[in-house]
Amino acid sequence: MSSDAEDVSDWWRTSIIDMEPGRIAFRGRPVEALIGNFSFPQMIWFMVTGEDLDGERATLLEAALVAAVDHGPQAPSIAIARMAVTCGVDLNNAMASALNVLGDVHGGAGEQAVELYDLIAAAIAKGVAEDRAVSDRLELWRQERGKFIPGFGHRFHKPVDPRAPRLLGLVDDAAAAGAVSGQFARIGRAIEAELRAEKGLPVPMNIDGATAVIFAELGCPPPLARGLFCLSRSVGILAHAWEQMQQGGRNKGPTPPRYRWTYDPGETK
Amino acid sequence: MSSDAEDVSDWWRTSIIDMEPGRIAFRGRPVEALIGNFSFPQMIWFMVTGEDLDGERATLLEAALVAAVDHGPQAPSIAIARMAVTCGVDLNNAMASALNVLGDVHGGAGEQAVELYDLIAAAIAKGVAEDRAVSDRLELWRQERGKFIPGFGHRFHKPVDPRAPRLLGLVDDAAAAGAVSGQFARIGRAIEAELRAEKGLPVPMNIDGATAVIFAELGCPPPLARGLFCLSRSVGILAHAWEQMQQGGRNKGPTPPRYRWTYDPGETK
Amino acid sequence: MSSDAEDVSDWWRTSIIDMEPGRIAFRGRPVEALIGNFSFPQMIWFMVTGEDLDGERATLLEAALVAAVDHGPQAPSIAIARMAVTCGVDLNNAMASALNVLGDVHGGAGEQAVELYDLIAAAIAKGVAEDRAVSDRLELWRQERGKFIPGFGHRFHKPVDPRAPRLLGLVDDAAAAGAVSGQFARIGRAIEAELRAEKGLPVPMNIDGATAVIFAELGCPPPLARGLFCLSRSVGILAHAWEQMQQGGRNKGPTPPRYRWTYDPGETK
Amino acid sequence: MSSDAEDVSDWWRTSIIDMEPGRIAFRGRPVEALIGNFSFPQMIWFMVTGEDLDGERATLLEAALVAAVDHGPQAPSIAIARMAVTCGVDLNNAMASALNVLGDVHGGAGEQAVELYDLIAAAIAKGVAEDRAVSDRLELWRQERGKFIPGFGHRFHKPVDPRAPRLLGLVDDAAAAGAVSGQFARIGRAIEAELRAEKGLPVPMNIDGATAVIFAELGCPPPLARGLFCLSRSVGILAHAWEQMQQGGRNKGPTPPRYRWTYDPGETK
Repeated sequence: MSSDAEDVSDWWRTSIIDMEPGRIAFRGRPVEALIGNFSFPQMIWFMVTGEDLDGERATLLEAALVAAVDHGPQAPSIAIARMAVTCGVDLNNAMASALNVLGDVHGGAGEQAVELYDLIAAAIAKGVAEDRAVSDRLELWRQERGKFIPGFGHRFHKPVDPRAPRLLGLVDDAAAAGAVSGQFARIGRAIEAELRAEKGLPVPMNIDGATAVIFAELGCPPPLARGLFCLSRSVGILAHAWEQMQQGGRNKGPTPPRYRWTYDPGETK
Repeated sequence: MSSDAEDVSDWWRTSIIDMEPGRIAFRGRPVEALIGNFSFPQMIWFMVTGEDLDGERATLLEAALVAAVDHGPQAPSIAIARMAVTCGVDLNNAMASALNVLGDVHGGAGEQAVELYDLIAAAIAKGVAEDRAVSDRLELWRQERGKFIPGFGHRFHKPVDPRAPRLLGLVDDAAAAGAVSGQFARIGRAIEAELRAEKGLPVPMNIDGATAVIFAELGCPPPLARGLFCLSRSVGILAHAWEQMQQGGRNKGPTPPRYRWTYDPGETK
Repeated sequence: MSSDAEDVSDWWRTSIIDMEPGRIAFRGRPVEALIGNFSFPQMIWFMVTGEDLDGERATLLEAALVAAVDHGPQAPSIAIARMAVTCGVDLNNAMASALNVLGDVHGGAGEQAVELYDLIAAAIAKGVAEDRAVSDRLELWRQERGKFIPGFGHRFHKPVDPRAPRLLGLVDDAAAAGAVSGQFARIGRAIEAELRAEKGLPVPMNIDGATAVIFAELGCPPPLARGLFCLSRSVGILAHAWEQMQQGGRNKGPTPPRYRWTYDPGETK
Repeated sequence: MSSDAEDVSDWWRTSIIDMEPGRIAFRGRPVEALIGNFSFPQMIWFMVTGEDLDGERATLLEAALVAAVDHGPQAPSIAIARMAVTCGVDLNNAMASALNVLGDVHGGAGEQAVELYDLIAAAIAKGVAEDRAVSDRLELWRQERGKFIPGFGHRFHKPVDPRAPRLLGLVDDAAAAGAVSGQFARIGRAIEAELRAEKGLPVPMNIDGATAVIFAELGCPPPLARGLFCLSRSVGILAHAWEQMQQGGRNKGPTPPRYRWTYDPGETK
């Protein structure tokens, strides 16, 4: 083809996939060599990072993906998926409306927690003592990013979010086996202890904080933590959308119709 | 450019917009001639259909767009927009998650009502008496499409949806002025009467049924009726998303958190 | 109802809409009084801000909404809408996928331009001379937000984006009539002049910069500028989605299939 | 709580998840018993269907999920994800815009292929010979649903889509081990043979046809086939969105800007 053709082809440029008729390769490996040999989590990691993920490290990613699938119909993402199917859209659309709201508050906490852990680890790497690194970075975070410490505290699961100790236990196992450093499990626990000391109350590590420990141990860049959470939560979104489709209903609102809403003329001008 | 360039350019082909540096034309007219001269509804119609819409006909489209903007937080689209902003996404994202659910049930009723009216009008055009055309086509619709007659009945507004008589009054005015035929207003009212006679109860023409009268009078293809409804409802979606943004809140669920949901092991297998 | 019922109703709280069976009121006014009396832009403004918008001010909003409807299939939002319908989704879904990408870069420039204008106006209000206010705030913006000055510069429309002078002319008319202050048109033009002087080349005010002048003149909070742009661009999105639906096509990709893409193993690791 | 509270809780009803402070159970099993014990595909199946999936059957689901992750930037879903991130939205939003277009044409083929296979299997169960069942049902499908036979034919991979024989080989292995019947692999191959005989050309089973064999062998209802495909393709969508984020770019259009598009006044009226 001419140079015209080249600039068109070059407009879309990727190291992820290569194809010819009858041949598909992902990052240089034929698809038929991956099918049946890679677990789904291994494929996820390979597609997204280009790295092989094996043994205890693959177990950790699998655990993180399993743990975050769902938090019930009170989670906006789940409620949205269920409402959507009653409006007459297909499962892909219901999933999209729901996935779309895994924003900075709902789905971004994992991403932010990885950032926070990385900041603390960087301080430690420069020679700051762990305790000091934790309290300094928490203070700095609050100054720059606001009062919420991502990955800690749960309005419902008190004093413990049952997913966190289980996930951290698996990180401990992997660290004992030498597969990961274990540093981020220590940092996560140190943050939890610091917050508890500050408030005099448990501020439990939540699902975002616990999966962020795993993502940080695996060397995952922060934005990808949100992306991986999206893959996990999509499972619960699909399960609820499908259940609602079987239950039926048309234009399901958030509460039973008889409650309506409160009209307050002074709410906004 | 070479033929390579041509096949690339031709891949995207449109009669809607033409540009050169410093020049933008929509369907052949320079943008600066439209700005300040076309009303927004005239621009909508011109962009979508390529036709000029003037006088009483423009008034009808404007009325339909104004009438359907919102139906409150019990409408899934509105609840979704409000929940979305509390998850930390921007207004465009909140609007997208909400707009996305204006599917066959929530947003498709207007499209289907135009289809139904067109079927009845086609029967009348073939010489069937109006009464007969209405009852026959309703029966056929139920056989082929199910029990819901699109555009009629409202779970809340009984015996009258206040938007419908107002919109039909405007259609009557436009028909009296010779701007539209008025046939679809007659058909809509005949359906309402037929349904009332069948059930012995009012089955009021709702917002979809009433705007569909306008869209049918204007000669709008059925799928566009949904598209125009989407433009209208986007206004309420934006208003509620913005109000929620001012109210604040984080990860707002459908009901106050203390209610949770009912776990029913037998709900689905 | 009991206090249980009240806390449920109060969970959804709004000043936008109030309903009883047979009655719908938007911000205290019956819907039937708005239909046929409010233009669509007046309704948009009233729904979103609670304010009446009349005369020259309404003309300005209408012009801004008309001007930004479309920028052709090279705009990601438009291309996405067209590709989406060839995948077999409905118009509401195609519109949602497209609207969703009006993010910080594509749709956020108007919001950011209003912010920038407001910052400059605030400096002037404190007694800083206009020239100085413009150059100082531009410098500060670049330090804090990066090199892109929102609302100025266009990769295609050089030396002039034809929408900008037309929109500013309407602002001048409204200012001459005393309907708006005209201050933001001055600020916009001063930024354009400053950027031209800096670069020795025209950096034309683009559609976002020009509509931001209007939104700022009307007193619109910055995030709403993005919301209003979303309403406007939705029109072009719908027009293109509908045109593509009529053209047909299945799974339309970005370029003709024979170009494929460039596989570059080193693109990302 | 009072009966008010009950009707609110009952409005959201699920068998998927149960919670109390400190306890989360999915379909009756504590989350901490699933984390570290269920593979991600086992969790997917369990969440969506309520069934345990073990051994060779779990291998098949894993293979189907791995196989369908990506088809490159020419697939609209992938191009959309990449364009979206250049518009300044987050990964969850880019994923949502892309996932949303896995509609009847792009993502529905798997769902439709399961339907077709089920129809053929039902005919066989009634005593129709397999050959006859295949040709009869294909004819009926075309009469009712149009000329496209879902799951077969590929505009690019000819004569063989490399994913199909690999996936069918795994089904054969599972059938040999008694884990699945193998009937749907036979039906899929019979359709492929029939289509080849009809056209005198290979009409290769594609990824949707091959994964549909697996989904049908596992007893998956047709709409879920689309949902599972959505989970798989989300991986490629994420990988490409993330790669594009690393590449940078602003408002990336479908082709290099110099090509623009073809303005054809007669394209649509």
